[in-house]
Amino acid sequence: MTENWLNEIRWTEDGLVPVIAREAGSGDVLMFAWMNREALRLTVETGHAVYWSRSRGKLWRKGEESGHTQIVKEIRLDCDADVLLLSVEQIGGIACHTGRHSCFFRKLENGQWVTDAPVIKNPEEIYRHE
Amino acid sequence: MTENWLNEIRWTEDGLVPVIAREAGSGDVLMFAWMNREALRLTVETGHAVYWSRSRGKLWRKGEESGHTQIVKEIRLDCDADVLLLSVEQIGGIACHTGRHSCFFRKLENGQWVTDAPVIKNPEEIYRHE
Repeated sequence: MTENWLNEIRWTEDGLVPVIAREAGSGDVLMFAWMNREALRLTVETGHAVYWSRSRGKLWRKGEESGHTQIVKEIRLDCDADVLLLSVEQIGGIACHTGRHSCFFRKLENGQWVTDAPVIKNPEEIYRHE
Repeated sequence: MTENWLNEIRWTEDGLVPVIAREAGSGDVLMFAWMNREALRLTVETGHAVYWSRSRGKLWRKGEESGHTQIVKEIRLDCDADVLLLSVEQIGGIACHTGRHSCFFRKLENGQWVTDAPVIKNPEEIYRHE
């Protein structure tokens, strides 16, 4: 398979592309992250979402610690070819490191950010290291 | 109203925040853009989405030329406080400058980006200048 589809993406100067992940069934927007070329190639090859962690400066196989992997059902590209939209099956139903379904658990109400989504699983249990 | 809610956002070095806009009723992800402080303040004040155009280096009142404005129903913030998710009513049902419902009209299929969404209105008609 040629890599034309990778070359069509307009990567940032840092070689990244922003990625929106939504849940395939519900359509819920789960999270926002970044990919580099290698992350996207691995995502397509393995069928599981692999991102680029800007804070850690390395590939981030989503769920590698938590088990909350994402099975990729669809990958879409926007009109400017510089943003990706993934439809994923979210294993465990938890995409956020806070133990919530979605990372977008705060809503602006009367000038305040109000949390309106429950913690499904305590992060200490998710990231427990023996 | 204090501006604490604006200060809680972790703006980029350029003073921007990435924004995902989805359609309130359908949940469809329509587009991805950026806001600066002023754009977000205006969005909240007017109830209509105002973005920051990085290419033009100025405020972009979505729909100012096309008429395809976005009435903002909800604004959400993610766990890291550095991404916004808007739920909007998309006037005209067209968010994309190509005349399509959503900007994410291309899907990866067998190593190719395949367009699978129709042009609802010809861009030449949308952006006609007398």
